Amino acid sequence: MKKIVEKIKRANKILIVSHKRPDGDSIGSQLGLILALKNIKKSIYCLNEDEVPETFLFLKGCEFIKKEFPLNKKFDLIVSLDMSDLSRTGERIEKFLKELLEKKVFLINIDHHDSNTNFGNENYVDTHSSSTSEMVFKILKKMNTKFDKDIVNSLYTGMVSDTGNFLFENTDSETFKLASKMIELGAERQKISNEVFMSRPFQKVKLISRVIDRAKFIDDKVYSYIKISDFKELKAKKEYTDGIVNELLKIKGVGFAVLLIEEENVIRISFRSKIEKYNANSFAKKFKGGGHYYAAGGRSEDTINNTIKHLEKELNSL
Amino acid sequence: MKKIVEKIKRANKILIVSHKRPDGDSIGSQLGLILALKNIKKSIYCLNEDEVPETFLFLKGCEFIKKEFPLNKKFDLIVSLDMSDLSRTGERIEKFLKELLEKKVFLINIDHHDSNTNFGNENYVDTHSSSTSEMVFKILKKMNTKFDKDIVNSLYTGMVSDTGNFLFENTDSETFKLASKMIELGAERQKISNEVFMSRPFQKVKLISRVIDRAKFIDDKVYSYIKISDFKELKAKKEYTDGIVNELLKIKGVGFAVLLIEEENVIRISFRSKIEKYNANSFAKKFKGGGHYYAAGGRSEDTINNTIKHLEKELNSL
Repeated sequence: MKKIVEKIKRANKILIVSHKRPDGDSIGSQLGLILALKNIKKSIYCLNEDEVPETFLFLKGCEFIKKEFPLNKKFDLIVSLDMSDLSRTGERIEKFLKELLEKKVFLINIDHHDSNTNFGNENYVDTHSSSTSEMVFKILKKMNTKFDKDIVNSLYTGMVSDTGNFLFENTDSETFKLASKMIELGAERQKISNEVFMSRPFQKVKLISRVIDRAKFIDDKVYSYIKISDFKELKAKKEYTDGIVNELLKIKGVGFAVLLIEEENVIRISFRSKIEKYNANSFAKKFKGGGHYYAAGGRSEDTINNTIKHLEKELNSL
Repeated sequence: MKKIVEKIKRANKILIVSHKRPDGDSIGSQLGLILALKNIKKSIYCLNEDEVPETFLFLKGCEFIKKEFPLNKKFDLIVSLDMSDLSRTGERIEKFLKELLEKKVFLINIDHHDSNTNFGNENYVDTHSSSTSEMVFKILKKMNTKFDKDIVNSLYTGMVSDTGNFLFENTDSETFKLASKMIELGAERQKISNEVFMSRPFQKVKLISRVIDRAKFIDDKVYSYIKISDFKELKAKKEYTDGIVNELLKIKGVGFAVLLIEEENVIRISFRSKIEKYNANSFAKKFKGGGHYYAAGGRSEDTINNTIKHLEKELNSL
């Protein structure tokens, strides 16, 4: 970590990137780092493929996260957050990053995914960390930068997002210690809890009801689906599907849950396990995907009916 | 707290009671105290009006919580946990306790409810505590009793139950510090998270869908109801209604949520607030109830239709 701290301290123009389809941890870790580095007068440009999801717009500094390429393309450092591989930025940004790397711009890779490919010039990959936000918090402490309310709000948001508010496997005593410290440093826990976990759009809640109604059980496995027509009918945004698979996983007796989400040209599939018996990562490979042991994703270009048939067959033989 | 510690240390035959319709905190604090005091060879009898809910049966020691009166009715100490008033034990046990109190048996009242009436001979009422389980943890630390996995499992369960897994107002940096300590002392966080928050009976999930379907909004307030016929139709147990009001509160834009639950002779009503504007405790008084600022309960002996009319009127003028 010492080398990372030195590199950041010495850099002036820093590019910060994270993965497409951003989640609470990618946004939270980016904002925490942006705000802290701006405080010490670094010039920061933050580039993402997709927009900040509605849920996280309450955080300060979202306006610093851009989709457009910077006008001045000179950087002396790139920091990549919460990405297992360079390609996770999306094609457009990956190409841009590769150009910078060819020009020998130094890349620091900060991440907590098992699947990280150590693609950086310097890699800080800690698979025991709850979140990338937790890792950024540790770096900033090491750097002795000033923490303000907005910085710890971002990092706390990232941490609770990735741990499902301290419910998932990645939560341990250290996670709670850091949560406690962030609150002491001013994190507005209640506000964040309300925004992230207590502010489900009613259309999302209706979408969940629909998914529950359609749930089909195969022993201790369950699957359900969202049809493309549901979005229109319920006036639901696509990002409202985030986390819905966990509602299936939370059912008593369920060890493995699958949610199919039909979109224009693809069916996105989420796999979740809550018991050691089921490996979501290896199951996802049957559907062109992968991820973690307990959480993975995949996809299908077939029709929803055919995909369901395929899925049922695979679940039956699991 | 010193006096409480002394009293417990000196007592030999201790009666532990809590409220009817037990929740995670009443059960968790009882089990934590029972197991710790049994370890130091105290004779313990624990008496509750109702059975331990299904959700908490995974905890060690549930068999020590009895519904039947003890054969030998001699006690030198009563410890009441998580009860704002003696009547919260239920009529049958309240009568029994009053007999003991007439015989000058000492009563320690340990609770965190605003509405506590300080009915004990010694009262440890801390409205800033997340839970009664947190308070029992502090007492046991002061007593220097040994902690084992089963004790901290109970107390952690109580704490996460009453804070909605660290989502509610009563969570602060101290709560996280204690959670961290409990894990270091052996609390099986993942197992507890799975049992308490990731094991919803499917009938409960269906009940939630029904409540969502019936939700009615009045500005930023929402109410819904469960009819007596729903239980039979969905094969749902009464205890499955626990926490359902929070599903209404979690809807975006909702500041105040009310759930009516029709039973044979009474309609039980839950009130929840997530913003300072709404005081659930004072609102509950309009329905023969009370509790905390952000969470309270009440009841009605009228019909469900009349109760809804009354409620709508009160919500409109709130």
